Amino acid sequence: MKPNGEDEEAPAGGPWEECFEVAVQLALRAGQIIRKALSEEKRVSTKTSAADLVTETDHLVEGLIISELQKRFPSHRFIAEEAAAAGAKCVLTPSPTWIVDPIDGTCNFVHRFPTVAVSIGFAVNQELEFGVIYHCTEERLYTGRRGRGAFCNGQRLRVSGETDISKALVLTEIGPKRDPATLKLFLSNMERLLHAKAHGVRVIGSSTLALCHLASGAADAYYQFGLHCWDLAAATVIIREAGGIVMDTSGGPLDLMSCRVVAAGTREMATLIAQALQTINYGRDDEK
Amino acid sequence: MKPNGEDEEAPAGGPWEECFEVAVQLALRAGQIIRKALSEEKRVSTKTSAADLVTETDHLVEGLIISELQKRFPSHRFIAEEAAAAGAKCVLTPSPTWIVDPIDGTCNFVHRFPTVAVSIGFAVNQELEFGVIYHCTEERLYTGRRGRGAFCNGQRLRVSGETDISKALVLTEIGPKRDPATLKLFLSNMERLLHAKAHGVRVIGSSTLALCHLASGAADAYYQFGLHCWDLAAATVIIREAGGIVMDTSGGPLDLMSCRVVAAGTREMATLIAQALQTINYGRDDEK
Repeated sequence: MKPNGEDEEAPAGGPWEECFEVAVQLALRAGQIIRKALSEEKRVSTKTSAADLVTETDHLVEGLIISELQKRFPSHRFIAEEAAAAGAKCVLTPSPTWIVDPIDGTCNFVHRFPTVAVSIGFAVNQELEFGVIYHCTEERLYTGRRGRGAFCNGQRLRVSGETDISKALVLTEIGPKRDPATLKLFLSNMERLLHAKAHGVRVIGSSTLALCHLASGAADAYYQFGLHCWDLAAATVIIREAGGIVMDTSGGPLDLMSCRVVAAGTREMATLIAQALQTINYGRDDEK
Repeated sequence: MKPNGEDEEAPAGGPWEECFEVAVQLALRAGQIIRKALSEEKRVSTKTSAADLVTETDHLVEGLIISELQKRFPSHRFIAEEAAAAGAKCVLTPSPTWIVDPIDGTCNFVHRFPTVAVSIGFAVNQELEFGVIYHCTEERLYTGRRGRGAFCNGQRLRVSGETDISKALVLTEIGPKRDPATLKLFLSNMERLLHAKAHGVRVIGSSTLALCHLASGAADAYYQFGLHCWDLAAATVIIREAGGIVMDTSGGPLDLMSCRVVAAGTREMATLIAQALQTINYGRDDEK
């Protein structure tokens, strides 16, 4: 991503204040719909595999968010999970762009496992400006704005300062590909971290909420292969504004479209995790 | 476990009503202490491995629960995590016995990962009478009483009716032993379930809360090697009263002291999971 110059710092309120406020309101509205749907029966159709389910509510919530944003900001662009699944291209241009995951943790949602979030990120000039993530069942609203800190329900977030894997709680997700070779690599990566004596590894079924736990200091590191730009965009701002690091699994700078990430409270921890991992190839979001 | 005769059915209120009420009050008080401690700095000493941490709060909460119960019910017996770690024997006699885990999810607690519970089970004549589990940070109180249903914050719990692994959300925990051979078996069991096309596998770091998710129908199965009777006692009543199955990983009846378990919404699912697993030997709670 191209960094903006410091001299472009936003005035009080910032040029994207209205966008941010709309994002918060839409995340809360979407969360309400999701909570209601969790108390009803659902028909489910499968996406690419049994592990990656898509529901009516997913479509409904994405439709609500995108149509509302299009009405308010007709010149803006959109990258969103369900649209991408239907064939829309994921390309981040310099235009103001919304990057939306209507329900992160769809498999959890389908099972009513109460770890489900709405994620709305916003980028301008290919730079992430803000992120809004709403934990629907626990009613926790995570926000981060570039240069203005990260918060959960009004409380400032700060990452853990841990640098030692043997004292770390590490989060990951299994990823959608379940062929034997991919599973072997996934399990081998988990084994490497447990051999390095990580205190624990957790798999909660929502990348964005795992990344929010990292931002809050409740975990020390996160890694995943097979996630998408809409899982990462909002959370990346929140983690950075909480003082944390989001990078590529190669150890280089984050590439939002690369379908892989390491995040940690400290650069030392992120680098150690990146070095421990074997790469699992999921292609790129902008080449699908 | 020895079943009680049906003719010993409790009258309205039941003979253990007072015990149940005291358990609920103690779980709520303990939860308050744990929530407060989560907002403070903590010193931590290690138990048998980095993965199995013990904290001052663990000792404090167990001390509170046991001393209060001893005062109210001086003839009762106790099995509790910290006392066992200090060398007390875990033997379930016919006497009224409290089986207590002051903080389930100690590693989560140490990292302030918000998935931490108090678990209080109660058995008479080696039969589990009731269980009380309190999710401290989410303030969810799970209760189950033999013959009288299972509830979360007053709402009746019902397990999932799923019988097909390829439609299942499965929960497990890594267990405290982290030697290479044990880790291989743990990962190989996870691989078998993913090969069987389980929708997902989750690892949340608290056996009792995972079992509560199962009781609520948010997950379809749970298995673990390396848990203890205090992780299982309260949850077992709650799952059974929600209509679920708790059995040994051999497929036979549950043995509370065997340090292993399979639980599911249906007997078919529990049996399929048990058949898929390789045994990891953790010894027995009553032989330590």
